[in-house]
Amino acid sequence: MLEKQTLALDAMGGDLGPEVVIPGAALAALRHPGLQFILFGDQAKMKPWLDKYPKLAAVAQMRHADVSVAMDEKPSQALRRGRNKSGMWFAIDAVHKGEAHAVVSAGNTGALMAMSRFILRTLPGIERPAIAAVWPTTRGESVVLDVGATVGADSRQLLEFAIMGEAMASCLFGIEHPTVGLLNIGVEEVKGNEDVKEAGRLLRELKLPLQYAGFVEGDDIGKGKVDVVVTEGFTGNVALKTAEGTAKQITTFLKAALNSTIVTKLGAFLASGAFDALRERLDPRKHNGGVFLGLNGVVVKSHGGTDALGFATAIDVAVDMVKNGLVARIASDLAEVNALLPQQAQAAE
Amino acid sequence: MLEKQTLALDAMGGDLGPEVVIPGAALAALRHPGLQFILFGDQAKMKPWLDKYPKLAAVAQMRHADVSVAMDEKPSQALRRGRNKSGMWFAIDAVHKGEAHAVVSAGNTGALMAMSRFILRTLPGIERPAIAAVWPTTRGESVVLDVGATVGADSRQLLEFAIMGEAMASCLFGIEHPTVGLLNIGVEEVKGNEDVKEAGRLLRELKLPLQYAGFVEGDDIGKGKVDVVVTEGFTGNVALKTAEGTAKQITTFLKAALNSTIVTKLGAFLASGAFDALRERLDPRKHNGGVFLGLNGVVVKSHGGTDALGFATAIDVAVDMVKNGLVARIASDLAEVNALLPQQAQAAE
Repeated sequence: MLEKQTLALDAMGGDLGPEVVIPGAALAALRHPGLQFILFGDQAKMKPWLDKYPKLAAVAQMRHADVSVAMDEKPSQALRRGRNKSGMWFAIDAVHKGEAHAVVSAGNTGALMAMSRFILRTLPGIERPAIAAVWPTTRGESVVLDVGATVGADSRQLLEFAIMGEAMASCLFGIEHPTVGLLNIGVEEVKGNEDVKEAGRLLRELKLPLQYAGFVEGDDIGKGKVDVVVTEGFTGNVALKTAEGTAKQITTFLKAALNSTIVTKLGAFLASGAFDALRERLDPRKHNGGVFLGLNGVVVKSHGGTDALGFATAIDVAVDMVKNGLVARIASDLAEVNALLPQQAQAAE
Repeated sequence: MLEKQTLALDAMGGDLGPEVVIPGAALAALRHPGLQFILFGDQAKMKPWLDKYPKLAAVAQMRHADVSVAMDEKPSQALRRGRNKSGMWFAIDAVHKGEAHAVVSAGNTGALMAMSRFILRTLPGIERPAIAAVWPTTRGESVVLDVGATVGADSRQLLEFAIMGEAMASCLFGIEHPTVGLLNIGVEEVKGNEDVKEAGRLLRELKLPLQYAGFVEGDDIGKGKVDVVVTEGFTGNVALKTAEGTAKQITTFLKAALNSTIVTKLGAFLASGAFDALRERLDPRKHNGGVFLGLNGVVVKSHGGTDALGFATAIDVAVDMVKNGLVARIASDLAEVNALLPQQAQAAE
């Protein structure tokens, strides 16, 4: 075991690479005294940025990598080109080797998932990892998964998502038993597709150590009706992007309306503190950090287009996951559930 | 053919029944001179409301029905209990018999769909009707379907949704060739599930008289990137409700922020015209009216909880659909497409 918490950072990942990753890490270093970093990437590009942050430099080491994974590279190509050569690969491998507790990357999502699966492998019984997003709600935040790691999920996989999302929410929000809901198109037991109905039945009938709250609908996510919203990756991805699009749309409407007359402009000026508060609540940088769940290690994906503040938030997420033992918790929860699952569900695996 | 456009209204449908339906019809009667109505429901409950609107009474007739379908009734139960007895049944049947051009109901969605399928039957080649919603966007409005008529859709059904949604958008927005996009989790051709990819291939390769714009993502809906967004009912329903939830969430945040200090309250007071404009743009009553597509007749579903203004909007939608010959257009488009479809796609039907 490493003494202090150490994070491996893919310094070349994201739209701007070290220009965002290193200032973000510097911010995180101030927030988390004792946290250590290993920065993977092109040394010549990382060094000038690291030189600007002596406090970060004191707790960080650089490791050179010849190859950087491009943001638009296909996962298979990134794996071929970047295997044993890229900063992304080395950063994940540092977790595998026990040199770091978690990896944070703002790089190509598909490549990061492909390499993470390849290097870290999935936990016993998990076929496909999920990506969980932190979703701002009227009550605070919720965890929503899967938001696009894979398309489709059968009842068994939805059950796994529930268990993994619950563990993540517990680590992130510091609550022992987060509530879990299954995303559906109605709250009655007869609604929805067969996989969702069957997952609902399993969650109700198995005596899992999990607070299952039943079906939730799309509009329940923003209300924060449950701490964890479980769905398959296609619907989860569409829901997440639809919410982002709606938020943008409304702020566009609002800006246009406020700019329409001199009086509304004056009103907007006086109310600017309120708009700052609104912007703050909706700020995607405050809710940055998708967690790959189901792997033998903590992998956190930052938005590629975020800035230093956003990247620091993704680091916060990684710190919480490591501190609260996410992977061990998921592994033990899964083992418990596998023991409870009826034979046919295991056989159907 | 009826001379003047006549609408059959399910007067007992919705949370408040005649209290909303009749004032809504009165508003629509003023907007559409020459429009005629047949009101189906409990005569004793309809009459006091109709008496309040002499201009509507001049163009409306009442037809008594003993049974009203309850909002929470299961479709199968509603069909058993309401067949040949309920206002909803009679209203749909009036379209079937050629007494009315379209039916508008704020009643139980599942029951309305079940009765509509039973009475009107689907168009040749259509297995399952879809529900299309009108979605407010930064550019205006778009049509999104299916928003929950059925769960799941294969490539052939997605193709049908594209054709039907395009016809509806053309009737609603008065444009000859609306653009059509397939909802997916990425814009690359390799992304998404097999049904969506195959539908994309069909839409690209068949030389349909349809402006196919490729894949769109969740955040493209609110941008109004395309006029018609095609997806299966589970994802469409989740997306619609997620957008509604997000809109509510942001307005809640905004209200709280504006109420936080005296200065922001003053600002909000001065900017109240802007907030009125915003409310107007987001007003769900202005975008009310889901259209059942794929049936031998026009069926428009109003939100159950709307008011007279909202119900009048649903009537507007029905008027546009009838005026522009929605059903005939869909039928001829489908025949054209069936002739173009490769053998295997027809065989797989």
